[in-house]
Amino acid sequence: MFSVAVLGATGYVGIEIVRLLQGHPDFKLTFAGSHSFVGKYLSDVYPNFRGLTDIKCEEFDAGNIPEADFYVTALADDVSKDIIPALIGQGKRVIDHSGLFRYKKVEVYEEWYKTKHVLPDLNEKAVYGLPEIHRKEISNATLVANPGCYPTCSILALAPLISQKMISTKGIVIDAVSGVSGAGRKTDLPYQFCELDENFKAYGVATHRHTSEIEQEISMLVNEEVVVSFTPHLAPLKRGMLCTIYADLKNDFAASELIGLYKDYYKNEFFVRILDEGKLPEVKFVAGSNFIDIGLVVDKRLNKVIILSAIDNLGKGAAGQAVQVLNILAGLPESTGLASPGLYI
Amino acid sequence: MFSVAVLGATGYVGIEIVRLLQGHPDFKLTFAGSHSFVGKYLSDVYPNFRGLTDIKCEEFDAGNIPEADFYVTALADDVSKDIIPALIGQGKRVIDHSGLFRYKKVEVYEEWYKTKHVLPDLNEKAVYGLPEIHRKEISNATLVANPGCYPTCSILALAPLISQKMISTKGIVIDAVSGVSGAGRKTDLPYQFCELDENFKAYGVATHRHTSEIEQEISMLVNEEVVVSFTPHLAPLKRGMLCTIYADLKNDFAASELIGLYKDYYKNEFFVRILDEGKLPEVKFVAGSNFIDIGLVVDKRLNKVIILSAIDNLGKGAAGQAVQVLNILAGLPESTGLASPGLYI
Amino acid sequence: MFSVAVLGATGYVGIEIVRLLQGHPDFKLTFAGSHSFVGKYLSDVYPNFRGLTDIKCEEFDAGNIPEADFYVTALADDVSKDIIPALIGQGKRVIDHSGLFRYKKVEVYEEWYKTKHVLPDLNEKAVYGLPEIHRKEISNATLVANPGCYPTCSILALAPLISQKMISTKGIVIDAVSGVSGAGRKTDLPYQFCELDENFKAYGVATHRHTSEIEQEISMLVNEEVVVSFTPHLAPLKRGMLCTIYADLKNDFAASELIGLYKDYYKNEFFVRILDEGKLPEVKFVAGSNFIDIGLVVDKRLNKVIILSAIDNLGKGAAGQAVQVLNILAGLPESTGLASPGLYI
Amino acid sequence: MFSVAVLGATGYVGIEIVRLLQGHPDFKLTFAGSHSFVGKYLSDVYPNFRGLTDIKCEEFDAGNIPEADFYVTALADDVSKDIIPALIGQGKRVIDHSGLFRYKKVEVYEEWYKTKHVLPDLNEKAVYGLPEIHRKEISNATLVANPGCYPTCSILALAPLISQKMISTKGIVIDAVSGVSGAGRKTDLPYQFCELDENFKAYGVATHRHTSEIEQEISMLVNEEVVVSFTPHLAPLKRGMLCTIYADLKNDFAASELIGLYKDYYKNEFFVRILDEGKLPEVKFVAGSNFIDIGLVVDKRLNKVIILSAIDNLGKGAAGQAVQVLNILAGLPESTGLASPGLYI
Repeated sequence: MFSVAVLGATGYVGIEIVRLLQGHPDFKLTFAGSHSFVGKYLSDVYPNFRGLTDIKCEEFDAGNIPEADFYVTALADDVSKDIIPALIGQGKRVIDHSGLFRYKKVEVYEEWYKTKHVLPDLNEKAVYGLPEIHRKEISNATLVANPGCYPTCSILALAPLISQKMISTKGIVIDAVSGVSGAGRKTDLPYQFCELDENFKAYGVATHRHTSEIEQEISMLVNEEVVVSFTPHLAPLKRGMLCTIYADLKNDFAASELIGLYKDYYKNEFFVRILDEGKLPEVKFVAGSNFIDIGLVVDKRLNKVIILSAIDNLGKGAAGQAVQVLNILAGLPESTGLASPGLYI
Repeated sequence: MFSVAVLGATGYVGIEIVRLLQGHPDFKLTFAGSHSFVGKYLSDVYPNFRGLTDIKCEEFDAGNIPEADFYVTALADDVSKDIIPALIGQGKRVIDHSGLFRYKKVEVYEEWYKTKHVLPDLNEKAVYGLPEIHRKEISNATLVANPGCYPTCSILALAPLISQKMISTKGIVIDAVSGVSGAGRKTDLPYQFCELDENFKAYGVATHRHTSEIEQEISMLVNEEVVVSFTPHLAPLKRGMLCTIYADLKNDFAASELIGLYKDYYKNEFFVRILDEGKLPEVKFVAGSNFIDIGLVVDKRLNKVIILSAIDNLGKGAAGQAVQVLNILAGLPESTGLASPGLYI
Repeated sequence: MFSVAVLGATGYVGIEIVRLLQGHPDFKLTFAGSHSFVGKYLSDVYPNFRGLTDIKCEEFDAGNIPEADFYVTALADDVSKDIIPALIGQGKRVIDHSGLFRYKKVEVYEEWYKTKHVLPDLNEKAVYGLPEIHRKEISNATLVANPGCYPTCSILALAPLISQKMISTKGIVIDAVSGVSGAGRKTDLPYQFCELDENFKAYGVATHRHTSEIEQEISMLVNEEVVVSFTPHLAPLKRGMLCTIYADLKNDFAASELIGLYKDYYKNEFFVRILDEGKLPEVKFVAGSNFIDIGLVVDKRLNKVIILSAIDNLGKGAAGQAVQVLNILAGLPESTGLASPGLYI
Repeated sequence: MFSVAVLGATGYVGIEIVRLLQGHPDFKLTFAGSHSFVGKYLSDVYPNFRGLTDIKCEEFDAGNIPEADFYVTALADDVSKDIIPALIGQGKRVIDHSGLFRYKKVEVYEEWYKTKHVLPDLNEKAVYGLPEIHRKEISNATLVANPGCYPTCSILALAPLISQKMISTKGIVIDAVSGVSGAGRKTDLPYQFCELDENFKAYGVATHRHTSEIEQEISMLVNEEVVVSFTPHLAPLKRGMLCTIYADLKNDFAASELIGLYKDYYKNEFFVRILDEGKLPEVKFVAGSNFIDIGLVVDKRLNKVIILSAIDNLGKGAAGQAVQVLNILAGLPESTGLASPGLYI
């Protein structure tokens, strides 16, 4: 049994990590850090945990770090900036959810986050925590930067085709839709029920930070600088994400060939499910789980491939992936505690 | 490892049982009976199961019953009527979800279901499958009639007060609200998305069959014939149920006393969570779990108690309870495979 | 054409009044008061008004009141307290939405609102703005207190039976459900999308202020002090309200008789629709309109009547009723500008 | 006052036309044709109309056509095929909602609808009913083919840029999202509440018929054969549509220039609202109205324009547009009866 400290346990990502640890046979939550709810029972903040845990929310800071085998931080970038160096300095192994350590080049971070990167040395040690692409480096990592939800959903959908150079690196369009929990446990007016229910909208058009994560990873896969058009949207659902990705095929491929390629590429990946021809992913097939479902359609008239990928933004897009990485760090089978089918209904 | 056959595996209750068995350490689904999807993979009918099971839906009838340690039937009353006698006749242990075997007196069934009860002998053997009230009989039962969702939510909410004779048996009002999955996987117009989204309505006023189940059980608890006013409503959510129950207190009790009584009454019940004074249950605290949350408020002006109880209609209201009963039948700890906090978000 | 100033135009009630005035043939919005959005175009705050109005939000206070034929205030009680005396002092006719002037006896206000009533003299002049009950007084009123949404939905549902003394005044239970807009344009955590979507809960049990409004009006109708049990709930929808009301019939009445009584009682009321036997109101039948739909069921086993009434909490429950009252004040036919069927879909 | 017969009055498009006629000063619904509800009051099928209309649903066929000034058909293609020739044969003026008469070339219809076009002569007379593009032809038309919802939302969003040849005709991607009412009043399983709530999915990828309508109209505007990539999605809302359109700019334009161009292009169009720079459309700003909101963003990194357009699929996407066309046919100001801001909440 490994002990895990979650710092930032009462946000939506944090509490999903807590939920997954609760059902995990080899991990135990031993510390629930939360600045907002210090001293309160976690089960008072999230009453679905009543009767299942008597852990209390506790204060923490760089000078006051609890003992644990592993650390997961689900904090604002500002807070991660102070905490992570202290953790790493004490030799701890950390999975971080901020944007701070997701970039090979700090300049990319600085450009998209409009702020100076103050921890360039630490950044060098960080590994991008997408197991299907970086499993080996993750297994030895001290600091893992858990990918954003949109990047996870986009990169895995593009990886086989782009790394095999079967699509043009020009003109890739990623049109993405997220459930509202992706914004975190915010109280701003735009996230109020009456403002989002029966609504649908785009946001951050041409400026969303996750664009740069996607570009970094697919550029690396094809070994060429790639830029993409990325547009996120908000749909009136709690959890779930669908990416619709458009790319130009370099040759005349049938959908079946491409699907065969994907099945082969991901043949050892438990969490990647490639759909048979004619089937399309739906958010409800992955909500509550750590799976990513990928379907492909070829538009012969345009020689374009449309790749559709679905994840739970809190699952494979955040907390589920964090636990998958924890499994790797701890040397456990990767699907341990993560083989839930989610809730269809 | 015990084998379980689920007959009627592709309805909303059936598939929830499948989901719970999937995460259960001691049960294995060995047969998924479904008249509608014979020959199809279960994971094609409910694609959230892709990669997790390769079981196929199979045909079944009274003359063609698969081998298994336990049987769960989630069928229309009409179909249960044919299948159950065959199962029992072969010495199988069965948990049934129809209304057929829930009544001590077949006349009550006949009155509320407007049909002749054709299996009165078999009915004599049946046990009402509410573990918190009938645990002992369940443990020896051959045929368990799993309670309706509204009765589960109402009976457990009333049991301590009514059995202690602290409330008047006259004038009890049960106002209940259910998520849409309670209606099953129907395709009738009233269950279409555009007809229910942003809607709220009552149905079956003064005639809902579950009234009679509630009356049977609370009458038994207080050893007196009790009739109640019961009104179900439909809210635009997939799963979850809330009962608001109004009863007249016989004496001048404080809420704290009543809450103390409830905590004591249910002190050994893992799945019953009594809320502290000032706290109220919400559907999202129990959705996806097998818990029932109960809160109490005393209206001193009226000397009335308002009892609020929440369950997941598919959880403690159906499939979760079935698995809880399976655990009892198999001699396992009752919470085995059922200690999930559900999904808050 | 009469000019109307709306003070508090950017809350959910305020903007619904603006919307109704926009489609009204005889009223024109000439002033949109909003402390939060001073200087902004109303169509920037609510972009559905783009191209339809170029009115800007303006500041206002007791010493700085715009000219208009009529005034509607949709303000917090605290703000109404300062503004209303100034308006009335200048001889203006006002429809107020706060709780301040809804009570015949200031002591009732003080008890339920836990605060001293500082304008008892002004309160004497106020008329409770429920046209179906107080039409005559309204027509001559200077200050009209627009009723709460729950009281509107409850009082009209009970009026025929209680005023005819056909139900017991003891034991009346009002179980009510509201859409989220009833809470106003709040940004508190409990009203965040992810906290309410797929959720259902009760609130303010045994303490909701609207209880006292309901009691005042039905007591007056039966000429006897009546207390009721009232429990409000929140459902995941934007607008709409359903009340399920339980009362004991004094004699053995058939539903058809009661429905006949209701049809007769309300025979001249355009906005009150009494449903035929066997039909029940649904929120979607009234959402977006100024109608109240009322259905009745008799539970012969208990000799109880269950009255179901539905309104749009922003329509007949607030803004629609305000415009209905405006029509009365201006001597217009009551349904002018209010004969919309709402949106079923 | 002109009389209007609606054939197919009880589908979601039909009843929205009825709703709009109800509030229209110059049109009166005189015939509500409905095969499914013959003899029933329209207000029994859609009870939001109770008290507002006493019209009954009536049977109709090619040999039995009611008298009226104008005819709107909201029927399946199969039924339109029989009815329209009869109407036109009798010299009636008709607005049809099927796909039958939307194409200049019957071959396009035959290719995308996979069926022989049996009325090529009649097709020659038909006008594509998008007033902002074909106003003049519409005004003289006998048979108007009301455009599909996706085409309306896409064509108007692309028209200024494509007709000015400022974007490449290659590589246009239209990613669209619709509310569920777009599917009509269906009872198939995929449209059941529990199957769509909290879900999001694509459908008809690379094969949706509306693709061909979009291509026809933008090809005509640019006088060149254009093919587009079009992907529709379903979001859990009742009404509303958002298109996110990606196109390559031929030169280095600033967003402000493009927005200026759009404002100029649509300067006389009441129903087209061009948003200022930095503002994006949202479904809730147009739901319930006949407006289309269009916003533009330039991604300088890619020299791509992202055009966002929002309509109500039942409004400007169907029934609203039909009434706009009716206004043209009748020689009325185009916004008559259509100047509603819709419902924000």
